[in-house]
Amino acid sequence: MSLLVLGTVAFDSIETPFGKAERIIGGAGTYICWSATQFNNQVNLVSVIGDDFPQEELNKLQQRGVSLEGLELRKGEKSFYWSGKYHLDMNSRDTLVTELNVLANFSPVLPDIYKTPEVLLLGNFAPAIQLQVLDQLHKRPRLVAMDTMNFWMDIAMDDLKKVLERVDILIINDEEARQLSSHHSLVKAARIIRSMGPKYLVIKKGEHGALLFYEEKVFFVPALPLEEVFDPTGAGDTFAGGFIGFLSKTKDFSYDNMKRALVYGSVMASFCVEDFGPTKLTQISHADVYNRTLEFLSMMEVSLEEIR
Amino acid sequence: MSLLVLGTVAFDSIETPFGKAERIIGGAGTYICWSATQFNNQVNLVSVIGDDFPQEELNKLQQRGVSLEGLELRKGEKSFYWSGKYHLDMNSRDTLVTELNVLANFSPVLPDIYKTPEVLLLGNFAPAIQLQVLDQLHKRPRLVAMDTMNFWMDIAMDDLKKVLERVDILIINDEEARQLSSHHSLVKAARIIRSMGPKYLVIKKGEHGALLFYEEKVFFVPALPLEEVFDPTGAGDTFAGGFIGFLSKTKDFSYDNMKRALVYGSVMASFCVEDFGPTKLTQISHADVYNRTLEFLSMMEVSLEEIR
Repeated sequence: MSLLVLGTVAFDSIETPFGKAERIIGGAGTYICWSATQFNNQVNLVSVIGDDFPQEELNKLQQRGVSLEGLELRKGEKSFYWSGKYHLDMNSRDTLVTELNVLANFSPVLPDIYKTPEVLLLGNFAPAIQLQVLDQLHKRPRLVAMDTMNFWMDIAMDDLKKVLERVDILIINDEEARQLSSHHSLVKAARIIRSMGPKYLVIKKGEHGALLFYEEKVFFVPALPLEEVFDPTGAGDTFAGGFIGFLSKTKDFSYDNMKRALVYGSVMASFCVEDFGPTKLTQISHADVYNRTLEFLSMMEVSLEEIR
Repeated sequence: MSLLVLGTVAFDSIETPFGKAERIIGGAGTYICWSATQFNNQVNLVSVIGDDFPQEELNKLQQRGVSLEGLELRKGEKSFYWSGKYHLDMNSRDTLVTELNVLANFSPVLPDIYKTPEVLLLGNFAPAIQLQVLDQLHKRPRLVAMDTMNFWMDIAMDDLKKVLERVDILIINDEEARQLSSHHSLVKAARIIRSMGPKYLVIKKGEHGALLFYEEKVFFVPALPLEEVFDPTGAGDTFAGGFIGFLSKTKDFSYDNMKRALVYGSVMASFCVEDFGPTKLTQISHADVYNRTLEFLSMMEVSLEEIR
């Protein structure tokens, strides 16, 4: 089933307590595509890069099944660049540099073959750009998911609300859910956010796992406790990519299947943080994903015979 | 199966964003007993109070099945008193007042009938006091669990290590696990702490749930997302009480049963935070516990047929 992904393709410089990586491949779109293609090899990416982006990296994505027809290449311009430094606890980070470059005046133009996706993931981007993608579609996809961040809540809340009205699933972290809803309790936050449009709300909590809210139900998947979290960059995008990749492959948008998708999102994110950038995602096999999924199930399985 | 509990019986004054409660009933031992007796009505409590503690509250505990023969009453002295104020996020708090009173020179003397418990829970107390309890037992209990806090790591680490060598299960929070092991990764922390004595390590993470580490296995139970966390005081002790109450009742100390106990600990803690002090714990029925447990299971259950 065709999956359309909007997300940045960029360079990152990252400093963690374990080391530094200069100008490595990054961007939400990159992480989403590497993760989603573990499940679905029919992914159309819409994004923009400068002519500084290595062709070799684009070839790798294409070999995974990612169509780059909607990836605009701006001659004489530079790709988006972000640089950040993680604190010792790896949960918080400081942004050192943000160079928008090609993102500064990006206006996506979808190729015709992109205009009838069955599933759409609007990765973290300016809400106005997310709207431009929605407005170019010939018909509403069967499933629309969206990621966003507090930055857009601060400067583009009106546009953000317009996008929210048009999506089925919102994927954000706990801090963002609290800001968006003005409520500390995640139960209340979920109720308010779901009244803004999305039927499903996924709240990512980093090392503390993720929650799925639907109607009055809630499902929880833990994060895998790891020996080392090497680099958390892209973990949230990787989570979203695995989640939507699994859903778009299985074509089952029931609550039960959303729960499975949440597990696979968490599985993929647990690989992402094991190395700098998307490196680990490019190396793992189906067997690795299978075995990691079994680890997740063993963390969650309990039999309470006396109560059932 | 007889359960021996060491824990404070005290007064608390609590301020949360939802209100204030002055000199209400508190103390780790109180919360543990109210929670454990939901499962096991053969609990022996060892603790100390002043003559300011209301007889009516003691009667309620006795009616639940708690023996108070080991509860020392010091005439002319005051009970332990703690006062604290929670921050808006309810995850952190400031201690305003700590009056040790009867705790200042407490030296527990176990009644003979307390000296052969099959299960022992050493609630948060000075490690020297925990050792005094262990030393008075006629034989080692089948299961010994222990709670402690960073305060004792700061001022009584040598004694704390002596207790650790004699326990099967340590129950602490994530911050304490990191301090005790000097490692940020909980996987590494668990390995180091388990090398200090306890075969099982339970790490409480408040609103983020709890982890059980055993050998190279890990099991996770979420916390119930709540509309309101009214007062988190005693939630950790309530968790420990439910955990050990269930284990001592079922007399099954396997890993699979520890996982069940973790769920029941979390179930009990989810009630505790719904009102000031142990109020809610005194009101809930078996049916309430049953229904809440079903809610927990619905949060954790996922079927991944294609992988099994």
